[in-house]
Amino acid sequence: MLKKKIFTPGPTQVHPDVLKATISSDTYHRSPAFKAFHGELNAKLKHIFQTDQNLNILTTSGTGSLETAVINFCNSSENVLFINQGRFGARWGGICKAYNINAVELPIEYGKVADVSDLESVNLANISAVLLTHTETSTASLTDIKKLTEYIKSKSDALVIVDAVTSVGAIEFRFDDWNLDVAVSASQKGLMTQPGIAIIAYSEKARAKMESNNMPRYFFDLRKEYKSVKEDGVTMWTPAVGLFYGVDKACDIILSEGLENKWKRTHEMAEYFRNESLKNGFGLFSTTPSDSLTAITLPDNIPTGKLIKAMKDNYGVQMANGQAEMKEKIARISHMGDLEMDDFVELNKLLVTEFKKLQS
Amino acid sequence: MLKKKIFTPGPTQVHPDVLKATISSDTYHRSPAFKAFHGELNAKLKHIFQTDQNLNILTTSGTGSLETAVINFCNSSENVLFINQGRFGARWGGICKAYNINAVELPIEYGKVADVSDLESVNLANISAVLLTHTETSTASLTDIKKLTEYIKSKSDALVIVDAVTSVGAIEFRFDDWNLDVAVSASQKGLMTQPGIAIIAYSEKARAKMESNNMPRYFFDLRKEYKSVKEDGVTMWTPAVGLFYGVDKACDIILSEGLENKWKRTHEMAEYFRNESLKNGFGLFSTTPSDSLTAITLPDNIPTGKLIKAMKDNYGVQMANGQAEMKEKIARISHMGDLEMDDFVELNKLLVTEFKKLQS
Repeated sequence: MLKKKIFTPGPTQVHPDVLKATISSDTYHRSPAFKAFHGELNAKLKHIFQTDQNLNILTTSGTGSLETAVINFCNSSENVLFINQGRFGARWGGICKAYNINAVELPIEYGKVADVSDLESVNLANISAVLLTHTETSTASLTDIKKLTEYIKSKSDALVIVDAVTSVGAIEFRFDDWNLDVAVSASQKGLMTQPGIAIIAYSEKARAKMESNNMPRYFFDLRKEYKSVKEDGVTMWTPAVGLFYGVDKACDIILSEGLENKWKRTHEMAEYFRNESLKNGFGLFSTTPSDSLTAITLPDNIPTGKLIKAMKDNYGVQMANGQAEMKEKIARISHMGDLEMDDFVELNKLLVTEFKKLQS
Repeated sequence: MLKKKIFTPGPTQVHPDVLKATISSDTYHRSPAFKAFHGELNAKLKHIFQTDQNLNILTTSGTGSLETAVINFCNSSENVLFINQGRFGARWGGICKAYNINAVELPIEYGKVADVSDLESVNLANISAVLLTHTETSTASLTDIKKLTEYIKSKSDALVIVDAVTSVGAIEFRFDDWNLDVAVSASQKGLMTQPGIAIIAYSEKARAKMESNNMPRYFFDLRKEYKSVKEDGVTMWTPAVGLFYGVDKACDIILSEGLENKWKRTHEMAEYFRNESLKNGFGLFSTTPSDSLTAITLPDNIPTGKLIKAMKDNYGVQMANGQAEMKEKIARISHMGDLEMDDFVELNKLLVTEFKKLQS
């Protein structure tokens, strides 16, 4: 019997110890004790982002952290580039539009991702920031951030800004080694905590730009956050204290397994699930699947909503449908969160059972 | 012996059932079950705000909700008025400045609040929004919002926008009856939940303005929130699910006591504490104290930090110092949260003991 039920790609299955930690402390957030805790949490998150540069923790959702990246590191007097290869890639463009930032769109068919040859059509010398998406959650696709960044940096001084929401803590991600400038993530994905906080890492080069960047902002003004943490040891605004303790416990769990071991295990679960899915007659929506989640398709135009509903009604298992126009075309299953190989062995059996019922 | 320890004016003492509720559910936030829950929570919060108009729940801190109010309901082509009678009144001005909104400042000595006669010096006909603070947390002062709003509306069409962060759920607050246009609050004050979510109520008049208001915004764009809740039954962005369940439980606790009973009880605790404080030789910083919290002063220039530290070190009791220039001049004690009269009887005894030690 399947004990773990949450296979949605955010919120993900939360470890019971993380839940306990979330309500474990009522330390006042301006107290010396909380400031010491905040410093330790910051260091753990830097390790998980694989960076020695700057990192702040924000009380917001993943989208709030995308906006934070745009308004601190991009400017309406410049051109930026975004890659529309899914709903979250497109969101970069939506945020830029809201702030009147000229965002050049590179459209890629959903299910595929941009590679270096796609970037060759763009005059990068005119671009001040490139907005990328590591795992595109809407299509379950992985972009080779390392390779794209190498190419971008060989052609321009543009900042490389990465949506790593559905990556950090679950799959290989190396902020410093990949020479990134900004990356954002959130608590309810690879960090397997409840939703409500987001994390942003940024290079020294990015920080220099943000100090003089004159875009309007207040709550999301990273200059205030940077200064507050540096001088006062704690966030500028009242933090979601409980979730900070939750993420801290999740970091401990990840780091005690070992970050690279965790990445490897996510890969093994994802690869197993993809192979079994193909054997069982499902298709894969993405041509370059991410290990963070899998998007399966069904044959014969069977709406995926039927399979998702059957799994929920019969076993209490939560999976996600596609978003917008992909709603009935895919079902998305997370490999992030507090999940193990056995959970996927069991999940597969149930999926096969329900799939057969739908075909009969 | 004092069982409850949290007397900081946010985060406040959280009821144990609220903590349990915070980690009680892993319902997917796009599921029909969560949407039904969200609708019920929204209705409870409308009751607590005393409004039949519009209300949204945001994953952010109190400051994020202040910014949401400014950028949705004010405009850089207009003049607004803010009253600088404490740190939070001043924050309205800071947010306006960040967005290049011309904010006329009405300065009031800290510890006092603006009354109608102070507004008479302002040409309200030129003002499109007045930004008020119900309980000014930094000075523990209460502004008579009802009276100011009556006056403002008699002189202009300005929107009345109220920071009710340190009010809603604890002390009398009537959005519709007082004819307010916008009010914001947060989870960690009168709603006695962990910090991380904020609530914004707005009138139909305000909503009409926000639809065409062209200030830049994305995560805090209430047009998106309004549409998402109306059409899809849930928040636009991934909500801090756990805190939503926490606030829901807190609403149940407040509503089962009865909202007016809760206000009355907060008043009784505050009045008792103020009277005892004066008897014991403390002073009150505010000339118009709020029932949400009390700011006491010490005689003979004794720094309040010494009293706060003694209470923490000897009894584990958490109180708050003043902010910035008021740091050592006041100690702030909450009457919000899961507290009862007995807690203040006990607290007083401990305060007297420690105060005597400091005087000897």
